[in-house]
Amino acid sequence: MSGPPPAVAEARRAVRRALAGLEKGALVLVACSGGADSLALAGAAAFAVPRMGLRAGGVTVDHGLQAGSAERADRVADALRGLGLDPVERAAVRVGRDGGPEGAARRARYDALDEAADRTGAAAVLLGHTADDQAETVLLGLARGSGARSLSGMAPRSGRYVRPFLGMERARVREACAAMGLHHWEDPHNADPAFARARVRHAALPALEKEIGPGIAPALARTADLLRDDADALDGWAADAARAADLGHGRLDVRVLEELPRAVRTRVLRRAAVAAGCPAGALSARHVAEVDRLVSEWRGQTRVDLPGGRGARRSDGALEFG
Amino acid sequence: MSGPPPAVAEARRAVRRALAGLEKGALVLVACSGGADSLALAGAAAFAVPRMGLRAGGVTVDHGLQAGSAERADRVADALRGLGLDPVERAAVRVGRDGGPEGAARRARYDALDEAADRTGAAAVLLGHTADDQAETVLLGLARGSGARSLSGMAPRSGRYVRPFLGMERARVREACAAMGLHHWEDPHNADPAFARARVRHAALPALEKEIGPGIAPALARTADLLRDDADALDGWAADAARAADLGHGRLDVRVLEELPRAVRTRVLRRAAVAAGCPAGALSARHVAEVDRLVSEWRGQTRVDLPGGRGARRSDGALEFG
Repeated sequence: MSGPPPAVAEARRAVRRALAGLEKGALVLVACSGGADSLALAGAAAFAVPRMGLRAGGVTVDHGLQAGSAERADRVADALRGLGLDPVERAAVRVGRDGGPEGAARRARYDALDEAADRTGAAAVLLGHTADDQAETVLLGLARGSGARSLSGMAPRSGRYVRPFLGMERARVREACAAMGLHHWEDPHNADPAFARARVRHAALPALEKEIGPGIAPALARTADLLRDDADALDGWAADAARAADLGHGRLDVRVLEELPRAVRTRVLRRAAVAAGCPAGALSARHVAEVDRLVSEWRGQTRVDLPGGRGARRSDGALEFG
Repeated sequence: MSGPPPAVAEARRAVRRALAGLEKGALVLVACSGGADSLALAGAAAFAVPRMGLRAGGVTVDHGLQAGSAERADRVADALRGLGLDPVERAAVRVGRDGGPEGAARRARYDALDEAADRTGAAAVLLGHTADDQAETVLLGLARGSGARSLSGMAPRSGRYVRPFLGMERARVREACAAMGLHHWEDPHNADPAFARARVRHAALPALEKEIGPGIAPALARTADLLRDDADALDGWAADAARAADLGHGRLDVRVLEELPRAVRTRVLRRAAVAAGCPAGALSARHVAEVDRLVSEWRGQTRVDLPGGRGARRSDGALEFG
């Protein structure tokens, strides 16, 4: 007896590995857009999840952004039922406008997925992101120039969200989809150059592959893993340091701050500024560096203005945010 | 009286800021290829360095890789003398073949610069790298996929090497060069697609700018600064942790290692493997991750093979490299 095609076996293995440790009987929802990646995930989960003593369900989100999207969501839900997933949820959302079209759609989608998971009591929601998606996320983060966390891409596991295919290349996942005989849909947004991610996928990454060499996508994905570990370690250190420097009333002890390496000190200062009401999105690395100078290059200056009408002030050996 | 053109003033300011803290009378050597960036640096240093109570000299390296390179080195040395630099050193090197043409030329160049600095007793050697060079270095590091240190680019100061223009864009430095009336040379290697850096400069970065947006080069340079701080902090933590885990005879205490965040533990393990004789260049993140599993996902396995005929072994609560 021959086994499944190698790509299918690899997809199933990825699902099993990602779900190890869940309690027997728990419900796992596959989030599926009908695209090749998430359909392959649904197919692999439909096979692997019940064999782990878990239950496999599905959820599809109708973003209402394209003509016929409601019918397509119905067809995706039918396909998920056809794979044996149960329950299958179908959520219609209204995409707002805040944060650009991609950001607004993403937020609406995750809200709907959260609701579906709450409603069904799902222990995990599986997402179909691949190593190529991860590479695109890292490149988009690079353009912001904002440090390890923004370069660390998507986590394999974050709360109940789990991404089993983050270590598989997109071509391999699509091979699995085809080998399972599943008919996927191509989202025209994925090729629409109005979207930054589509430009990264179809132009920026291919240009890098051509000029720097193949293997840039997996290299970016590996980088993301390493930098996520770095960011976790440094965030933990910063949390400890913030406690050690805390003088109460939002004041930080300059002598404690001085002893910290800059990577840790700037994280402590950023947290304190945000806790004092600075909008995190408006607080740039440059702002934080200016506050840092109140500690590391102090020449008697007393105040740095920050976004949101906030500021940092040095007096009596303490840094105060307000 | 009007001051110098803004680009020239900025270049001089960059030199002054980079050299703050040197002892009066110390010699500063400008490394100059005759290209626009290092020629602008020579011009800015010729003005700013003597006014700081320091002495400004120059050095140019003949790599012997192109016809007429010896004559060109003579002309560059003449130009440096014409700017008032003294002494001016001229070094001819033989470029080997190890590590590819760019790596071999770089090594030969730094050997020659080191020798010139030793011979003249220079306290600092100035290099003309710009923010664009930094961005290219980060992109080349990304292609290797090997973590914060390889993405942290070039340091503004490393030993006696100082890079005053790392925060200036290349276009601005070239503007300063032109405004000082200095005639530069275009190195054909900089445009030769046989060289990875030239491909990054002339194809990969422009493609990223076109698809992701302008400002990608400064974003990469900012990223490098942040990641260099991260790498410094984590290396310091790892050095402390390695001492805390040391049981003597190259053995590390597993209980101490278990308590560390993965970013720190993998750094401790990498150091230990290299100290035990693993060739650093051959030791990949994957090897280190395998050794890490002897600590973090131990299921009774006892040994991981490493490059250079080395290995890591777990026994009696200790990890041993040999």
